[in-house]
Amino acid sequence: MLLQHATWIEAEAYLRRSNGIIMPIGSTEQHGPNGLIGTDALCAEVIARGVGEAAQAFVGPTIGVGMAVHHMGFAGSMTLRPSTLIQIIHDYVLSLARHGFRRFFFLNGHGGNIATVNAAFYEIYAAAEGALGQAAVDQPLQCKLVNWWDSPAASVVARELFGDDDGSHATASEVSVTQWAFPDTIKRGVTLDPPRAPAGRFYGPADFRKRYPDGRIGSNPGLATPDKGKRLYDAAVPDITNMYREFVAAE
Amino acid sequence: MLLQHATWIEAEAYLRRSNGIIMPIGSTEQHGPNGLIGTDALCAEVIARGVGEAAQAFVGPTIGVGMAVHHMGFAGSMTLRPSTLIQIIHDYVLSLARHGFRRFFFLNGHGGNIATVNAAFYEIYAAAEGALGQAAVDQPLQCKLVNWWDSPAASVVARELFGDDDGSHATASEVSVTQWAFPDTIKRGVTLDPPRAPAGRFYGPADFRKRYPDGRIGSNPGLATPDKGKRLYDAAVPDITNMYREFVAAE
Amino acid sequence: MLLQHATWIEAEAYLRRSNGIIMPIGSTEQHGPNGLIGTDALCAEVIARGVGEAAQAFVGPTIGVGMAVHHMGFAGSMTLRPSTLIQIIHDYVLSLARHGFRRFFFLNGHGGNIATVNAAFYEIYAAAEGALGQAAVDQPLQCKLVNWWDSPAASVVARELFGDDDGSHATASEVSVTQWAFPDTIKRGVTLDPPRAPAGRFYGPADFRKRYPDGRIGSNPGLATPDKGKRLYDAAVPDITNMYREFVAAE
Amino acid sequence: MLLQHATWIEAEAYLRRSNGIIMPIGSTEQHGPNGLIGTDALCAEVIARGVGEAAQAFVGPTIGVGMAVHHMGFAGSMTLRPSTLIQIIHDYVLSLARHGFRRFFFLNGHGGNIATVNAAFYEIYAAAEGALGQAAVDQPLQCKLVNWWDSPAASVVARELFGDDDGSHATASEVSVTQWAFPDTIKRGVTLDPPRAPAGRFYGPADFRKRYPDGRIGSNPGLATPDKGKRLYDAAVPDITNMYREFVAAE
Amino acid sequence: MLLQHATWIEAEAYLRRSNGIIMPIGSTEQHGPNGLIGTDALCAEVIARGVGEAAQAFVGPTIGVGMAVHHMGFAGSMTLRPSTLIQIIHDYVLSLARHGFRRFFFLNGHGGNIATVNAAFYEIYAAAEGALGQAAVDQPLQCKLVNWWDSPAASVVARELFGDDDGSHATASEVSVTQWAFPDTIKRGVTLDPPRAPAGRFYGPADFRKRYPDGRIGSNPGLATPDKGKRLYDAAVPDITNMYREFVAAE
Amino acid sequence: MLLQHATWIEAEAYLRRSNGIIMPIGSTEQHGPNGLIGTDALCAEVIARGVGEAAQAFVGPTIGVGMAVHHMGFAGSMTLRPSTLIQIIHDYVLSLARHGFRRFFFLNGHGGNIATVNAAFYEIYAAAEGALGQAAVDQPLQCKLVNWWDSPAASVVARELFGDDDGSHATASEVSVTQWAFPDTIKRGVTLDPPRAPAGRFYGPADFRKRYPDGRIGSNPGLATPDKGKRLYDAAVPDITNMYREFVAAE
Repeated sequence: MLLQHATWIEAEAYLRRSNGIIMPIGSTEQHGPNGLIGTDALCAEVIARGVGEAAQAFVGPTIGVGMAVHHMGFAGSMTLRPSTLIQIIHDYVLSLARHGFRRFFFLNGHGGNIATVNAAFYEIYAAAEGALGQAAVDQPLQCKLVNWWDSPAASVVARELFGDDDGSHATASEVSVTQWAFPDTIKRGVTLDPPRAPAGRFYGPADFRKRYPDGRIGSNPGLATPDKGKRLYDAAVPDITNMYREFVAAE
Repeated sequence: MLLQHATWIEAEAYLRRSNGIIMPIGSTEQHGPNGLIGTDALCAEVIARGVGEAAQAFVGPTIGVGMAVHHMGFAGSMTLRPSTLIQIIHDYVLSLARHGFRRFFFLNGHGGNIATVNAAFYEIYAAAEGALGQAAVDQPLQCKLVNWWDSPAASVVARELFGDDDGSHATASEVSVTQWAFPDTIKRGVTLDPPRAPAGRFYGPADFRKRYPDGRIGSNPGLATPDKGKRLYDAAVPDITNMYREFVAAE
Repeated sequence: MLLQHATWIEAEAYLRRSNGIIMPIGSTEQHGPNGLIGTDALCAEVIARGVGEAAQAFVGPTIGVGMAVHHMGFAGSMTLRPSTLIQIIHDYVLSLARHGFRRFFFLNGHGGNIATVNAAFYEIYAAAEGALGQAAVDQPLQCKLVNWWDSPAASVVARELFGDDDGSHATASEVSVTQWAFPDTIKRGVTLDPPRAPAGRFYGPADFRKRYPDGRIGSNPGLATPDKGKRLYDAAVPDITNMYREFVAAE
Repeated sequence: MLLQHATWIEAEAYLRRSNGIIMPIGSTEQHGPNGLIGTDALCAEVIARGVGEAAQAFVGPTIGVGMAVHHMGFAGSMTLRPSTLIQIIHDYVLSLARHGFRRFFFLNGHGGNIATVNAAFYEIYAAAEGALGQAAVDQPLQCKLVNWWDSPAASVVARELFGDDDGSHATASEVSVTQWAFPDTIKRGVTLDPPRAPAGRFYGPADFRKRYPDGRIGSNPGLATPDKGKRLYDAAVPDITNMYREFVAAE
Repeated sequence: MLLQHATWIEAEAYLRRSNGIIMPIGSTEQHGPNGLIGTDALCAEVIARGVGEAAQAFVGPTIGVGMAVHHMGFAGSMTLRPSTLIQIIHDYVLSLARHGFRRFFFLNGHGGNIATVNAAFYEIYAAAEGALGQAAVDQPLQCKLVNWWDSPAASVVARELFGDDDGSHATASEVSVTQWAFPDTIKRGVTLDPPRAPAGRFYGPADFRKRYPDGRIGSNPGLATPDKGKRLYDAAVPDITNMYREFVAAE
Repeated sequence: MLLQHATWIEAEAYLRRSNGIIMPIGSTEQHGPNGLIGTDALCAEVIARGVGEAAQAFVGPTIGVGMAVHHMGFAGSMTLRPSTLIQIIHDYVLSLARHGFRRFFFLNGHGGNIATVNAAFYEIYAAAEGALGQAAVDQPLQCKLVNWWDSPAASVVARELFGDDDGSHATASEVSVTQWAFPDTIKRGVTLDPPRAPAGRFYGPADFRKRYPDGRIGSNPGLATPDKGKRLYDAAVPDITNMYREFVAAE
């Protein structure tokens, strides 16, 4: 149920039964030698669509580029400055709030977005009364960020499938999900050396590239397969659907 | 050829043969009683993908929400303030420029974006030397905006198919393109009254809604069909592919 | 009828009969070897004053520096970043709107301003309700940009006088207007080589300077004379006065 | 010697002998019952032109609207937010600095601008190295604000002519200068009641209007005449010319 | 070892042996009926000073007001919008980086700051090369946020002292630390009803106040004593000193 | 009476009897060879606390870093860009205004802040009605900046103690105040050469360092002693207390 696939008359009807919406947010950044640059956006979008169907909820347009300053040492990576991303989320939410949307469930595919998106929520709360007047007082905005890997069931599956080889960037899990959802994009014959990338912390982009020369952190995405992606998707969607339902139903 | 479907290693290889990229930009806003809220983003994306295949050029992530302040009187419409859209385009272009991209071909699906996107290009030119240093002097950035309906061939087809009934917002042409590309989203049984909407100018959102109560301007999208959409797409892609090729080849 | 030449008591009286105002906007940038750096601001101001007299309408203070990033390769050129110009126009319009002005007719002398000024109008529409509250809903702001060369009569005169030699930057027309209005500033004995400058497109400032080494695009301002300037002025003022009257009278 | 009346070739020649420029800045705001809304801009511009002639120095385009938030209770007053004015001055100075200008002498006609313009200078100093690179280190920017009434000779004249009746807003002095420079704009038959307005402090616009109901502070501009304006002008120009010369000559 | 208590000559000497600095950041917001409005700033500052002594490291000026939008329903609470806090941290870090500081250890006393401060770090990484040039490439900036309650030893003490009564806002722990550090500020005779406040989530300020009418979340700060505060302080300082040392020593 | 040492319930009670608050603001910047980097913040804070006690008025959290771009040539100096400082003051004042505070008395310790803080006040006045609605109209905000050395009594003492040796940066007076308030920080055995520093003007940071190589301007802080600091403090506090009382009592 994509907002983009509805008419404004359908949107008006939807708002009579719900004030919730699912907002996918990802990133467009390197994901190692065999992961897609769009991995985070694609995962967020695919799972958001599944949740939207299950919950009969609108899915807004995907925020495809996120906060990925630290990946800028690798070709093709794109980033927003945090201050730009805050303004985008502000404009998205206040646009929709004008029509009566009040519960904004951001379904996230990129760890690097978490801090900025949460900061943005408070920028919005600070602006809401000025922008919406009494309407924002009577029915306040509520924004929530959920990462797709926050699904307990998907975590169990990921653990079972990959153990410590899942890693923290360019994970075997996320590469699997994109392989399942976009089988034409599977990169074959890529050698990962070492199979499991080193793990650890990092600071800016130069530091990241020095520590993780092929872009992965702690992962072995050589283990990814479409079937595993399907298992992860099938595990994540019901969990996150429940999270969404609780969010919009809560007082 | 989506940037999001490539790896960073593939992006690095691409940059050895080309410094051009196609950037689709649309809008998420009402398109009358039978047009999709995402019409402008969907048209831009679909045609950009066709051009990307034909030109063997990367297509970047779609900017799905544009400058649509004037549509905010209709449920489901989203907008960026012009100042936010300028920052987004700034960040997108300067991110990619860091890797060596230099020719940015924005393929646009929404008239309301034109002014702001062109303003953004100069914000970028003003910032480029500071952000990229000598690299920006040696090989300057070039940004260009092309609307998909700028295709001469597509204009001829639209004229032939719809004449004056094409209109200027929620056009029969754009509704046709989405019907062809997304047949599941066709809205059936919608009455358009009058069949051809009134035309004219407008200022802010309240003024727009008062003048054009169902959201259309000058159009009769009741004439839209998937087949007509295919004809428009088939006409537009070769034209715009040529425009792209000339843009990246020009000195 | 300059706003700057009125008292606040006169402004209060004016607002009882009209809510319209003419806002001249130009640029301070190179105009080739014999054109004044202030050409665009001077033309906009001179013609705005004529229109203000004819329409008995206030003329606001001229925005003398515009968006001229692409001219920055030539000494003396000044520019605002688009984001700054948007803020200026926002502040100008919302200041005046507070007193009851509602129709803002920007009379423009510089093609490079068009995109940014139009973007600014939507920034204003987005901000107006927050800034003015119910007053902005009851009586919405309307902003319009008109270039002085949009006058049909002036176009005919320019065509007749200069044909293709008018060009698109440092035009024979605009140089004529300044020669008529400011005869002391006429630059004599300047050789233009070639007489008619090359024409075409350009991107940033370095690109502009490389393509157009003396700053002109497609023009032969060696044909300019004060008399021709007077003819252009005499043609433009009545046309634009009509445009202004229609704008403020329209529902 | 107006920058706007020069060509870029003349500007290039000027820069070979001087890196200084005079930047007039005023305001467009109420000046009591018989003072022009443009008083501050007009005075700054007129005196700047005199200084420019005397010093053979370029005079840049006037910043006609200043920081006048406190005058917004009176019809026709315009204001920039301080943050906007800072951006304007930043863009003006850095534009000109790119060509080699280094000494920026702001000739001010409005007390309300002083704080913001001085703040802007430091915004510029903070930005200069990033914007201009090594050039800004080798030859640093210097910005100075001088109010026209800082002229010792003009102060003596004002004191002699008006004593305590000069006041601090809508002063007899500034009204005299505009009466001399723009005799057509003299407002005749205006009763000032009381002749000398009350004096004191104020905070925002509502507070200002309550304390000073006709807009004047401490002044009796009923004493203004064109002749007195000429005396003030004749006193101010040589003084400020000297200040300018010292500023550009200083190490 | 406060930076504010050193001279610039001492700062220069310090930079020859270390490029690290401790930056305390707190908040000024309600902390329930017996907690100080400055609790978070005071705790961060007190513990930062202890760590600074132990590590012989400079402690920068405390950021006393943080991101506390959600507390704005309670008198005396102050907040920065996230976008303002990002600019502050940007300016603090880039100021110090100009002198050679490279490792910025933010010692935080307020959970509400975490997202915004982490977002700010990436705003800084994105800006650093432009602001510092080659120096930032040769020796990149590293920023880290540590909450004082991240100390494992302090967590054990808190658990032992308060168990579930510690809560998550206006905690018994933080109230104890301020009671120990500022015994004159202890609020006596305050009844907490119920003794342990309800726990849960919240969104904007109105929502917060409705759910938590006295401002506490899940805590019983009636259990706070100065002695317990000392135990917490004594546990936290060595732990965080080690964290700081590892941070500045790491490659 | 520190706001940070009160509870929100005490803040609520305070607001029933007063709507005034003292806001200390300083700077963290070099103060010559024997002056503390925090001199301006420390003086402002110490004197504000004295005034708060005397007037039984709340003292808000100190703004410890100010506008010190010109000091950035000396290690340890920190600065905010003016635009950042404006945003901070905006957020501080509007936060407190939401609870009913209306009179904001900024007690300043740094000359470099004056312009920017005064600019900020007008940014606030421009924003207040939008942010606070009718409340801001009914009871407008009033902001005032007082430098601690504006105390007539303290000026007399400074003159008597130091004469022309007090200087204008790193003054003997301010160094004395910090020596009295923070005796542990006294720098002993520092040679000042020459004893009294040169005086004059300056522009950006490089210019400042060149003219004043040890950071002082016109001062001989070798004359500073704790006893003199106490005399200055004892003179300043009653004077400034009176200024505060008049400010909050005025109509």
